[in-house]
Amino acid sequence: MAINYKARIYVTLRPSVLDPAGVAVKSGLEQLGYTTVEQVRIGKYIEVSLSAENEVSAKDQLEQMCDQVLANPVIENFCFELDEVGNPAKV
Amino acid sequence: MAINYKARIYVTLRPSVLDPAGVAVKSGLEQLGYTTVEQVRIGKYIEVSLSAENEVSAKDQLEQMCDQVLANPVIENFCFELDEVGNPAKV
Repeated sequence: MAINYKARIYVTLRPSVLDPAGVAVKSGLEQLGYTTVEQVRIGKYIEVSLSAENEVSAKDQLEQMCDQVLANPVIENFCFELDEVGNPAKV
Repeated sequence: MAINYKARIYVTLRPSVLDPAGVAVKSGLEQLGYTTVEQVRIGKYIEVSLSAENEVSAKDQLEQMCDQVLANPVIENFCFELDEVGNPAKV
């Protein structure tokens, strides 16, 4: 029996890595009059629905997915939150 | 005296909008053996540091920024979390 999970994954650039897109957005905001903005950093927000035997297995899978595919560990950090959803699905 | 805030903004595609990038990532994950993944949706995660008189004013500004620049309200939803950071800055 597998349980359905929903993961919310946040991928952000490491603090030491320049974020030209963020700088461009900040400058755009300033030109529109939002002069109180000090910094903008842009990352990715990924929602993944998956099924797994239990929470530990789901977390293991997600950790691997993030490390291999969803984030570039050289320049990015990631973290995720995991929630069980709905009724357990029969397999 | 202005207070420094840090906002974490989440921009997601509305549920009715197709997400081809998410479909491509899901297919990539499947090819790598992650066959338990049911859906992937990709959004944006934006960190904005700004200063404002108070929390209400910061929230108002953020709401406007998201609506005008950071999200496309026709196809995207947004939400944000706001935290006060560090010591108040003197203006």
